Amino acid sequence: MAYKRIGIIGGVGPAATILYYQLLLEGCRKRTGGESVPEIVIYSLDITQIDGYFKKNNLDGLSDKLINVVQGFEQQACDLALFSCNAMHLAYDRVAERVHIPMINMIDAVVEEAIRQRLKCVGIMGTIFVMQSGLYSDILGKKGITTVLPEPDQQEWIMDAIHVDLQKPVIPEATTKRLLNIAQMLVDQGAEAVILGCTDLPAGINKHNCPVPVLDTTEIHVNAILDRALGK
Amino acid sequence: MAYKRIGIIGGVGPAATILYYQLLLEGCRKRTGGESVPEIVIYSLDITQIDGYFKKNNLDGLSDKLINVVQGFEQQACDLALFSCNAMHLAYDRVAERVHIPMINMIDAVVEEAIRQRLKCVGIMGTIFVMQSGLYSDILGKKGITTVLPEPDQQEWIMDAIHVDLQKPVIPEATTKRLLNIAQMLVDQGAEAVILGCTDLPAGINKHNCPVPVLDTTEIHVNAILDRALGK
Repeated sequence: MAYKRIGIIGGVGPAATILYYQLLLEGCRKRTGGESVPEIVIYSLDITQIDGYFKKNNLDGLSDKLINVVQGFEQQACDLALFSCNAMHLAYDRVAERVHIPMINMIDAVVEEAIRQRLKCVGIMGTIFVMQSGLYSDILGKKGITTVLPEPDQQEWIMDAIHVDLQKPVIPEATTKRLLNIAQMLVDQGAEAVILGCTDLPAGINKHNCPVPVLDTTEIHVNAILDRALGK
Repeated sequence: MAYKRIGIIGGVGPAATILYYQLLLEGCRKRTGGESVPEIVIYSLDITQIDGYFKKNNLDGLSDKLINVVQGFEQQACDLALFSCNAMHLAYDRVAERVHIPMINMIDAVVEEAIRQRLKCVGIMGTIFVMQSGLYSDILGKKGITTVLPEPDQQEWIMDAIHVDLQKPVIPEATTKRLLNIAQMLVDQGAEAVILGCTDLPAGINKHNCPVPVLDTTEIHVNAILDRALGK
């Protein structure tokens, strides 16, 4: 077994963590045609504790927690690590510089995909932390790609939808409709594609139901992880 | 957060691992009424490697691998560990005596449930390794509970079904029907309930579709884990 051992920091939220796990295993079988898969270590955090760090903007506390988890991955001989959550990437630099295994950055993978698609302007939907932090827009800006965001009241509503409606087993139709409307509005403002910048968003809005092009951050991230884990 | 940190050895198979994760989180929220959940570390093994140990009856090799994983859990400060797979319990004693955190034994939890239900005779369905090893029947026998098994050709067929049909996203109707027929046959031979002794079985046969009583090993195990993790 020549595959690399993968460490996933997840639980924020659990549905996205499960989706990463499923897509990694499926993607491996599709790429290799075999049944052998990489060993995967998932550390599922308590979402209420992590939300506490975000709400207090305590990135130092969050980073300490995440560094501790990645050091555990190192002791379990993981070859690479990743966050299965967009917002957690606000702590990426602080964590990556303190650990000894490579971390696969979701934001970088999405920006590379936007460049590959030669996009000039993209919309961003996600949690408040992602939309208001410049997590995507700063890096995209440096690459000459402009960004458009939902209106402040729409941002608040998306945040609520991620916390409540998108955690339900069946997503309310009105929620899906409003998410699609916001995506359309971003396109009307010049976006050629919309970044779904929260791994919980595809439960309500995704490439199958959205009439405008989307960049599914989970799908793009998983592909980048498989490139590394299967030794491309 | 007073919850215990849980280490799950999974990946054999992945669907059962996901089910454990979901049931533990749901069960915690139901029991506590809150959103805070235990931290859970999942180590997902390569199923082809583990099947190799079983096929060669190499319990020493399997145990060494599992001890290594549990020692990793210890370094991640897990408070307890478990196998989300019936057959892996063939290595339970060898692993439990070499690690320093308590392990929650699925077989013991199921036997306790059989005793609680005052059963005198149970049927056993599962992988060949579970049905032919005495994993359940030896302990049940000591408690005065007799066991009945499927015929040898049915055992071979169940093993194939677990490996192929029960891994499909939609289970073939004929497979479900034959599983239910075998359960009924065990009841006709005196079983008062049937142990679903493989965590992949409930995808095809479970308390919702089976006309005879079943002991769902995943459900029983998850309840025993929650009793410990939430500090009952």
